[in-house]
Amino acid sequence: MKYSFIIAFCIFCRYLCVAQTYDEYTELTDTQPYDDESVWNGIPSSPRISWGSTDVRYAKLNVPEIPEINTMWKTKAWRGERVNAQAVIWTKNKLSDVNVTVSDLTSGSSVIPSSGISPSFVRYVMTDELNKDGKSACGHRPDKAEWDSSLVADVLYEPGLKEIKAYTAQPVWINVCIPREVSAGVYKGVLTVSGKDFADMKLRLEITVLNRVLPSPGAWSFHLDLWQNPYSVARYYQVPLWSEAHFDAMRPVMKKLADAGQKVITATIMHKPWNGQTEDHFDSMVSKVRKTDGTWVYDYAVFDKWVEYMMSLGIDRQINCYTLIPWALSFDYFDQATNRILFVETKPGDAAYGAYWGAFLKDFSSHLRSKGWFERTTIAMDERGLEAMKEAIKVIRKADPEFKISLAGNYHEEIEGDLYDLCLGFGHHFPEAVKTARDKAGKVSTVYTCCAEARPNTFTFSPPAEATWIGWHAAAGNYDGYLRWAYNSWTADPLRDSRFRTWAAGDCYLVYPGYSSIRMERLIEGIQDYEKIRILRKEFADKKAAGKLKKLNAAVSMFTDENIETRNAAGDVNTARNVLNGF
Amino acid sequence: MKYSFIIAFCIFCRYLCVAQTYDEYTELTDTQPYDDESVWNGIPSSPRISWGSTDVRYAKLNVPEIPEINTMWKTKAWRGERVNAQAVIWTKNKLSDVNVTVSDLTSGSSVIPSSGISPSFVRYVMTDELNKDGKSACGHRPDKAEWDSSLVADVLYEPGLKEIKAYTAQPVWINVCIPREVSAGVYKGVLTVSGKDFADMKLRLEITVLNRVLPSPGAWSFHLDLWQNPYSVARYYQVPLWSEAHFDAMRPVMKKLADAGQKVITATIMHKPWNGQTEDHFDSMVSKVRKTDGTWVYDYAVFDKWVEYMMSLGIDRQINCYTLIPWALSFDYFDQATNRILFVETKPGDAAYGAYWGAFLKDFSSHLRSKGWFERTTIAMDERGLEAMKEAIKVIRKADPEFKISLAGNYHEEIEGDLYDLCLGFGHHFPEAVKTARDKAGKVSTVYTCCAEARPNTFTFSPPAEATWIGWHAAAGNYDGYLRWAYNSWTADPLRDSRFRTWAAGDCYLVYPGYSSIRMERLIEGIQDYEKIRILRKEFADKKAAGKLKKLNAAVSMFTDENIETRNAAGDVNTARNVLNGF
Repeated sequence: MKYSFIIAFCIFCRYLCVAQTYDEYTELTDTQPYDDESVWNGIPSSPRISWGSTDVRYAKLNVPEIPEINTMWKTKAWRGERVNAQAVIWTKNKLSDVNVTVSDLTSGSSVIPSSGISPSFVRYVMTDELNKDGKSACGHRPDKAEWDSSLVADVLYEPGLKEIKAYTAQPVWINVCIPREVSAGVYKGVLTVSGKDFADMKLRLEITVLNRVLPSPGAWSFHLDLWQNPYSVARYYQVPLWSEAHFDAMRPVMKKLADAGQKVITATIMHKPWNGQTEDHFDSMVSKVRKTDGTWVYDYAVFDKWVEYMMSLGIDRQINCYTLIPWALSFDYFDQATNRILFVETKPGDAAYGAYWGAFLKDFSSHLRSKGWFERTTIAMDERGLEAMKEAIKVIRKADPEFKISLAGNYHEEIEGDLYDLCLGFGHHFPEAVKTARDKAGKVSTVYTCCAEARPNTFTFSPPAEATWIGWHAAAGNYDGYLRWAYNSWTADPLRDSRFRTWAAGDCYLVYPGYSSIRMERLIEGIQDYEKIRILRKEFADKKAAGKLKKLNAAVSMFTDENIETRNAAGDVNTARNVLNGF
Repeated sequence: MKYSFIIAFCIFCRYLCVAQTYDEYTELTDTQPYDDESVWNGIPSSPRISWGSTDVRYAKLNVPEIPEINTMWKTKAWRGERVNAQAVIWTKNKLSDVNVTVSDLTSGSSVIPSSGISPSFVRYVMTDELNKDGKSACGHRPDKAEWDSSLVADVLYEPGLKEIKAYTAQPVWINVCIPREVSAGVYKGVLTVSGKDFADMKLRLEITVLNRVLPSPGAWSFHLDLWQNPYSVARYYQVPLWSEAHFDAMRPVMKKLADAGQKVITATIMHKPWNGQTEDHFDSMVSKVRKTDGTWVYDYAVFDKWVEYMMSLGIDRQINCYTLIPWALSFDYFDQATNRILFVETKPGDAAYGAYWGAFLKDFSSHLRSKGWFERTTIAMDERGLEAMKEAIKVIRKADPEFKISLAGNYHEEIEGDLYDLCLGFGHHFPEAVKTARDKAGKVSTVYTCCAEARPNTFTFSPPAEATWIGWHAAAGNYDGYLRWAYNSWTADPLRDSRFRTWAAGDCYLVYPGYSSIRMERLIEGIQDYEKIRILRKEFADKKAAGKLKKLNAAVSMFTDENIETRNAAGDVNTARNVLNGF
């Protein structure tokens, strides 16, 4: 009873606005012009199918631009790699109960089992556009009507489709996981699209598996830090926060992240570290209780549950705890005397600030040590005024000099030495000597993109190849990895509408409730490429294969941030990958 | 540091509006017409002094109506009794550094020590009036200008006065505590008013101590239940709630209550049991914590501190816990998952209501038993719909059938049997058989007044004798005692302005920060009279002194609620007390 009324209550007070569920759903209506029947009538009455390109978001209501039908897809891959392909179905008649299957891929007696191949229908989400100047995507967007909106292909929907409407294109995405165990060779198989009112349609695929091994994501060196938002998941699925149902709902979402090689658990140690800028604000995973005698006690129940859960999924390298310097300098605690949540309004440098955080960080340090997590934990900040950051660092050091500290922001010579994990904005670089010293000290040095970059980016309207470009850029810029501020800060209706009250559409999340995205799969490609580059560079260096090393580095060097505005990400990636897969 | 910032914070957010302090203060200005100089010039230039009457609130700016100066005050008292007298100084010239002292009162070698005699200057507070119909004092009073306001004598201010202005009257109140140990006899002493610019002024007093003993307040049978508001004290003195400083600030206030024979500790077990109707809302003294697994834990730290503190002052007979049926059906708890205070909106009869309260009351019961308080504790309600009360009682009984329950409200035959402590509104009566049965069962049956009664009442403008009248009425109505909803729910500026946004002035509090009042001292007189009546009735019954019993009961019978509108409380009390002190 208790349980049910709490849920009822929570739904009442927080979730009333959310109507859609996890199950089958109807996409929004596209208001853009599209091919009329006269164009569609130019094609035969039987449904068409062809291989397309993973660089293209095929329009839903247009006859796809596929000059001639291609029934054979060929690619190269390493053992252990995951590769993507896209086919397109288009039809002028309605198709019902449509399903896609892919056979085992065989090479003699060797098999890439179909169980490792996930086909999905690409579905459409509402997006908007860059800022009018085309230079960035930051800022508030209170009035959706001011922005040119359209439906774009992004969601990778695994269930079958009850119906493909007449006069529409329906892309099909496949992700093939090459087992690490298979031998090199040419593997062949067939993709079949079947349905009620049409004959099976087939496409052939052929993957040349090279005799090279990509380690499992857990072993990748690429430091991936996509910030998780557990609060979004609880709201979307209407489950009580931190309940078993909540953890069950998060499992597919966070497992997908682990499989991308995520290294960092996003933890929050205060109320609204980012001032509630997302649809679901982050809250404190630690309860700070001030007793009537003025002493403090801390409850780590939620923090521990969250960290242990993420570690059980394989995300166990680092715990970043936000933040000592929030965007609104107001710090929450439960006051035993008044039986209320109160807030201390104070700022770095104030006695009250030192008192509030000093007491907590001392206790937090011993809790982390007792859990064996201290070495993996950082007290994390976003870019703030240098003086404020210095003061915060003082408080952290005073509480425990051994605390690791992380920052996603600009490069500040004055505090660089204090930062174990330093992530610079796109276009910012580590002085070479500093980077070398950081590597030696085992420090993490990465790069991030956010709304500030028009490209490369992972908005729902961004060209898919830009997501892959990011991994190559990390290699070119000698970064250890990549950070993005939002892995799943879902909008109110994320499956249907990726637009939000701030920033360009898709900025808040890379994956959908229950489903991956073209953006996410292409991002993983880039991370895999980064690992492949790392492995080859080492091999070529060890073997003193200067020629090959030069050839590889030449390919990588295409991915600096110079002239980024005019680059063709797809072209760059395809060219460079041909080189990469040529070794 | 922590401590100081918390105070600073609290002051900032809650107490900014409160300017005055506990120390010397200036009264507000009376806007009523008053005697001009021509009237004042009719008196000699040297200051006047005379005994007056405790039934009169002497106007500050008028020549007091004292036909002839009276320098001798005589009264009768029992051993252990406290008696009050009032003198008046009036002057057309300014008097400086004025002090009042009273000598020991002696009867041969026997002494009533001056240490037991507290003289104080009567000071003036702003009051308003009854509702325009003269029939009640309930309802909102948002606009003070709509009400006829005036300064009235009520505060009993013990420090000396720096100055008595020219053309003013300054009453002096004395409270004499007769030791239980002194022998019967006629005790004589002198009251002296001294100051800088006038010769000492003296009045004589003579108390005939009868050979009868009034027990100490702790032993009084009168069930006094004046509701305490610890939250007011914290706000007024700007001390952190439940801190040592808070308990120190409450000590004189609550000690005064213990000395009046208070039996009940007012405890609150939810947020805003009365929907925050007072200047300082009551909050929960218990923290209810819902853990992420849906189970509950309860923190009794504040509740225990409060109860133990009050018991240490001698208020230890009963703990009334408010309430399962608040005026707004919204119930607070700390939610571990969201790290927030949430509220359950539910009502008696709902599953959610039973779940919230059932879980708590079970735990509360065992906590109370472990503290040895269970037998003294009641789950307390105010008058609500009968069905709602029945449902609440069900929930209480289900959690622990032995829970005591109390109600201040109307008489409901249907639930009377469930109510250990039942307090009826003025004018409502217990059926004689029911009262007898309740007495036999050791149940408490009392009466209350609130804003509903024009008289008798204890507003700051009420005739002082009406406070005494209440004790006699309890005796006449065969009630075990008296309840008032507000002992110290202070207004924003209680020493200077007793008006509030609701009800007639003074409804919210009987005593002042640091000081007693004419109302409170006169109320205690009535309680003492009630005890004296009880003792004499028993004695006369034991001794079969039918005549005396009849005479006493005749005096008591004057104090029923019939024709209360036209009664003269002072006349009734004085007449009846002459009889009482005649035995």
